[in-house]
Amino acid sequence: MSKLPNISTSIFTVMSKMATEYNAINLSQGFPNFPVDERLTDIVAKLAKENVHQYTPMSGYPTLLSKIATLIKNSYGRTIQPETELLVTAGATQAIFTTITALVKSNDEVIILDPSYDCYEAPVLLCNANPVRVALNDDYTPNWEIIGKACTAKTKMIIINNPHNPTGKILTESDFEALEMLLEKHSDIVLLSDEVYEYITFEEKHISAHTREKLLNRCVMVSSFGKSFHVTGWKVGYLAAPEYLMKEIKKVHQFLVFSVNSICQVAISEYLEIVSVSEIGKLYQEKRDYFRQLLKDSRFKLMPCEGTYFQVVSYANISNENDVDFCKRLIIEHGVAAIPISTFYADGKDLKLIRFCFAKDNATLEEAAKRLCAI
Amino acid sequence: MSKLPNISTSIFTVMSKMATEYNAINLSQGFPNFPVDERLTDIVAKLAKENVHQYTPMSGYPTLLSKIATLIKNSYGRTIQPETELLVTAGATQAIFTTITALVKSNDEVIILDPSYDCYEAPVLLCNANPVRVALNDDYTPNWEIIGKACTAKTKMIIINNPHNPTGKILTESDFEALEMLLEKHSDIVLLSDEVYEYITFEEKHISAHTREKLLNRCVMVSSFGKSFHVTGWKVGYLAAPEYLMKEIKKVHQFLVFSVNSICQVAISEYLEIVSVSEIGKLYQEKRDYFRQLLKDSRFKLMPCEGTYFQVVSYANISNENDVDFCKRLIIEHGVAAIPISTFYADGKDLKLIRFCFAKDNATLEEAAKRLCAI
Ligand SMILES: CSCCC(=O)C(=O)O
Ligand SMILES: CSCCC(=O)C(=O)O
Repeated sequence: MSKLPNISTSIFTVMSKMATEYNAINLSQGFPNFPVDERLTDIVAKLAKENVHQYTPMSGYPTLLSKIATLIKNSYGRTIQPETELLVTAGATQAIFTTITALVKSNDEVIILDPSYDCYEAPVLLCNANPVRVALNDDYTPNWEIIGKACTAKTKMIIINNPHNPTGKILTESDFEALEMLLEKHSDIVLLSDEVYEYITFEEKHISAHTREKLLNRCVMVSSFGKSFHVTGWKVGYLAAPEYLMKEIKKVHQFLVFSVNSICQVAISEYLEIVSVSEIGKLYQEKRDYFRQLLKDSRFKLMPCEGTYFQVVSYANISNENDVDFCKRLIIEHGVAAIPISTFYADGKDLKLIRFCFAKDNATLEEAAKRLCAI
Repeated sequence: MSKLPNISTSIFTVMSKMATEYNAINLSQGFPNFPVDERLTDIVAKLAKENVHQYTPMSGYPTLLSKIATLIKNSYGRTIQPETELLVTAGATQAIFTTITALVKSNDEVIILDPSYDCYEAPVLLCNANPVRVALNDDYTPNWEIIGKACTAKTKMIIINNPHNPTGKILTESDFEALEMLLEKHSDIVLLSDEVYEYITFEEKHISAHTREKLLNRCVMVSSFGKSFHVTGWKVGYLAAPEYLMKEIKKVHQFLVFSVNSICQVAISEYLEIVSVSEIGKLYQEKRDYFRQLLKDSRFKLMPCEGTYFQVVSYANISNENDVDFCKRLIIEHGVAAIPISTFYADGKDLKLIRFCFAKDNATLEEAAKRLCAI
């Protein structure tokens, strides 16, 4: 009877709830626990008293759209048309759902790379289309040969997530070259590039789809102000797409949500005047380094982390339990909540890996590390 | 190629944009232009500095959910379970889209009563289901006999909108009795009750689906804080549904948007402590009466208005143009924007009727009326 018989409550909800119940330190669901930039909350406090409480236009608050265009220009050198190629969304999740719903038809195939964030599959299933889950290599690089073989006449979309949640991996120049070669052979495939952590990369520079001339005419790029400005609750994101795709996406958007929270749109547009996005990567690089330092003498093995605010660790030295059970025990017995990586795989592959969110103030990271080092 | 080949930019966007271009008084798209209650904007200003900027739980901010349950109890005497029967949504549009997407399958039929608000059809089409548009009677009462005949084994849902946009009509006790009798014969049909104007009724009291024992086990009720509290830009609404339907709706919601703007959810939950919803109907009844009074000597014929903040008028005495052309000319030549009623009909039926929004301060209503009386 259900249209989504195999979908249950998301792992982020399950783990955050359990963390609250057991009063554990919540390093599961990804959200910052440190204060938001005062300059941004000052803007909100001021705006509360202004005329910002009615519908913005369907595509987004016009000033925000043009500020996003400027941001893209400054970050990536790309000139984008705010009216026809940008759409403000109620978070990246809504951007992704809307894009898939607008572009994917019954019996189409959509390639999703495992491990993968959990919001890609449901909209594909709701389109009566088929998710085709292709495993990343063991080092989480994409295997373009296997991905190429998975492309059929029915393939409508490939979804990439760069920087990658949960593994923190970022795509390289040669990844993009391989992807571009592959797509040259398949003129109908749309690329959905989930770049919500675009400003959270460390040693290596993030390569955005915005910079790939060969992809722009078929790529939908998704981003999130919640991630970039530490306001995950605001639910303001955006997507960029070529006009012929944007037309279809807007048709769905206008009847799916119509418009996005006005106060927060105006606030972000004013904040974009004064904030420098280069601070974001620096902040999280310090947090990553500090958290890794704190865990250095624990029995957990730290995996590489090139971007995002997530650190994956192996507990294979500690326990043979499956990762879901291990995470539950970690909450109950040790007071720290994490996300089991098996939940990012269609087949629930258990590699004894779990994910910690390090978007936390230092005191929280220290207390969590103390508990984890005691294991 | 398009999944929605016949859908274009919504009439509300078209008319609001044209109103701006020609600097006309915008009585087209429904939104208030008077200041929001200071008590509510004070709350927002205060909250800006508090810890309200990260994800709320997927179903909604828990305090808001329980305040909504109290509101429903106080308004309608219904006891509802906040955790299992309520969901906060990014506006009523998202509630409606999500409900239809979760419950309607390929080839199902969904009955929509014409004239109808424009957001019901697109989600039905995106489910590969069939909208069945049934005309209301000439006085905008539902013809339950015809609706009954339109019900087939494929009918999955009937959508009602009460109070009704654009006609301002509200359903009566005998309407509900007829609907209940009809649904008794069709155990699979879900009722989607769009009640976003529930608190905006005048001489007659609004009958909510919440008060209908026989409907509760199969009814999804949708409401909007944007309409009730004059903050259409906030995009916070909610839906109420029995648990077995809510489970399916939440599966879609969590991957469609995940959660709703946190600041505004917290603000509304605090405001619900101090506001009385009975003020809303009174405010708009005064506005309706004033606007009707102002138009009394115009050549427009005023239709009845039992609820909503819309006044439908006939211009048959003035012009023979179709209503879309008339509305365009009204903007360009007379500086007032309205919505043509033909756009609420699947077949574009032109009855020489247009809709004005009277959710405006008195000065705006006076200036608009002055222009309209000069025609
Ligand atoms: C929408 S809840 C999940 C937040 C997140 O992006 C993550 O934890 O991976
Ligand atoms: C979402 S824009 C339309 C607003 C509205 O409800 C109306 O004008 O009918």
